[in-house]
Amino acid sequence: MFPVKATTGNLLFMIYNGKKLRTIWFDTDENVVKIIDQRYLPFEMVIESITTCDEMCRAITDMYLRGAPLIGVAAAYGVWLALLECANSSNPQEAFRTSMERLSTTRPTAVNLLWAINRVMRAIDGVSDLKERTTITFKLAGEMADEDADICRSIGEHGLTIIENLYRKLGRPIQVLTHCNAGALATVDYGTATSPMYIARERNIPIHVWVDETRPRNQGRLTSWELQQADIDNTVICDNTGGYLMQQGKVDMVIVGTDRVTANGDVANKIGTYLKALAAHDNDIPFYVALPSPTIDWSLEEGVSSIPIEERSPEEVLAIDGDIDGKRSSVRLFSSGIKAKNYGFDITPARLVTGFITEKGICKPNELKTFFGR
Amino acid sequence: MFPVKATTGNLLFMIYNGKKLRTIWFDTDENVVKIIDQRYLPFEMVIESITTCDEMCRAITDMYLRGAPLIGVAAAYGVWLALLECANSSNPQEAFRTSMERLSTTRPTAVNLLWAINRVMRAIDGVSDLKERTTITFKLAGEMADEDADICRSIGEHGLTIIENLYRKLGRPIQVLTHCNAGALATVDYGTATSPMYIARERNIPIHVWVDETRPRNQGRLTSWELQQADIDNTVICDNTGGYLMQQGKVDMVIVGTDRVTANGDVANKIGTYLKALAAHDNDIPFYVALPSPTIDWSLEEGVSSIPIEERSPEEVLAIDGDIDGKRSSVRLFSSGIKAKNYGFDITPARLVTGFITEKGICKPNELKTFFGR
Repeated sequence: MFPVKATTGNLLFMIYNGKKLRTIWFDTDENVVKIIDQRYLPFEMVIESITTCDEMCRAITDMYLRGAPLIGVAAAYGVWLALLECANSSNPQEAFRTSMERLSTTRPTAVNLLWAINRVMRAIDGVSDLKERTTITFKLAGEMADEDADICRSIGEHGLTIIENLYRKLGRPIQVLTHCNAGALATVDYGTATSPMYIARERNIPIHVWVDETRPRNQGRLTSWELQQADIDNTVICDNTGGYLMQQGKVDMVIVGTDRVTANGDVANKIGTYLKALAAHDNDIPFYVALPSPTIDWSLEEGVSSIPIEERSPEEVLAIDGDIDGKRSSVRLFSSGIKAKNYGFDITPARLVTGFITEKGICKPNELKTFFGR
Repeated sequence: MFPVKATTGNLLFMIYNGKKLRTIWFDTDENVVKIIDQRYLPFEMVIESITTCDEMCRAITDMYLRGAPLIGVAAAYGVWLALLECANSSNPQEAFRTSMERLSTTRPTAVNLLWAINRVMRAIDGVSDLKERTTITFKLAGEMADEDADICRSIGEHGLTIIENLYRKLGRPIQVLTHCNAGALATVDYGTATSPMYIARERNIPIHVWVDETRPRNQGRLTSWELQQADIDNTVICDNTGGYLMQQGKVDMVIVGTDRVTANGDVANKIGTYLKALAAHDNDIPFYVALPSPTIDWSLEEGVSSIPIEERSPEEVLAIDGDIDGKRSSVRLFSSGIKAKNYGFDITPARLVTGFITEKGICKPNELKTFFGR
């Protein structure tokens, strides 16, 4: 165990441990749901109270919080808030229905959002008493948060065995490269790709993490900030750099998260992941994908041709935000009239993946179906 | 031929054609050497007069101009300026020697710098009359500029045959991906990787160029600006994106420049090149390297283990500059205390290179020695 301090103010920030702070939690002193408003990270640590379903909708839509597991838990608390509010309405059923419609459409492509809402709806299906529905939902939201933290911790425990084996073999700090932020900030706690790093830190197995800056949204700065909070040695690099580091023997393993894995083991993840997988393969470096098992989409046989890739605003490429003397500011990177394209994800073919680190254990792409009994 | 306008003011800017504007030239109206001061690009087009050897040294050191061939020509004009100045000195020989020392050390690793200075020194070796030395040097500097433009144009002519063949086969605009700026701005005119694009535009062979932004120094904005000036359709992408585009059949060929090629065909180029070469190889997309033949370093048998890679300031990764309301500004991208590493180049192994486009023609990596009679 190691205490981790907040960067701002005197707030004790211990995202790793989970006892002091998660990305979302119910504050029992103030009787309110709280979240880390990630829009200000890594420059400022802001905690928001979410008191209405509408506020939760805004928090999801405007990306106060992000990451599939976290969005799921946020949605569950959103349902709870909607139930609380509709009790004061002249037409509770109608008011609740309207809130649910709004909540369901906060992020169009987030599978976890609908999954979480449906899970809550099933739990309160057939329960007519509004107070009871509210109590069940509150309890379930908390359980879902704990569940996510548990799943992520299990991913970490399994992933740690890989790091431990490398450490035993090499006898020096293990060099891990990661892309994007599949970190505690994208989940309730621990993260997926970062979880083995946190557990390694806990067990005093020395590691150093190469953090891809991850253009265009620069989620690498969330990862570097997270790891810094947890006192894990890390160095930021441009997305261009990983190949060179691998050529030079400066990377022992790659761990990334994923947004969707198909039945054959193809991996959709943040754009640029495929390039790192190619470089890892070319240099005989193990390439691992960390994920909660529900991320596997058994309905798709393969991913390269079948997973739709989100195209986002060119503005994310043409301008970038950062800090100027304590003020968040955006600068234009290109001259006027320049066009840009911005694809959010790419597909890493299964042949480039060494293994999947799940809460149930580690398996190879070609073992995926057997491992999960499909 | 197509006229190209300057982005700012009413200056007629025709970097492609070379008649109106190169990156460096002697202005016969004003009797002065002029350069495009690239520090302000792509946001502002600034032309500077260089009137002393000291000014030329500053222009090279502070990267008013960049790119090996351009630095060479700038150095030649620098020698000329030093000769002019030393005529007014009480000890011309000593004054000239001091200037040459300064000029030779403006950029420590630029091979072209010393090559150009030595070439001039050989040409005036044995000529004792200072006026004659000055005249010879001035003429030679101009010839070297013309020579560089000619070499680049030849690279373009040879490279065009590849684009033409693809166009004949596919009958639609050819999709070219490039990394960094191996453009007219890095040479006297035409560029290396961009030269086939300029010639294609001249011959009305339709192309579209994917321009890697090329973190951390974002030279992609120079490339996109250059191509925009020349009315060549282009789209900027993050360095992470090329692999996905190739997976989706949206890239027909890759052309990059190089800083050094070893005898076996290994290619040192801007960091990230190797990742694009891997992706091109994985998707059966031809990967070409455009270069003037002196870029081949016959003294090194291979590059992956033997070419030293420049490590640059982490600040280039941690902060980025751009335009805020017409003012060039720098924003910090990461929170305080975050470390970064910044390697300038990587090595693309010969096995990933389809061909070298040189001023003497195109050859495969394994034909390199035979092609150049080594």
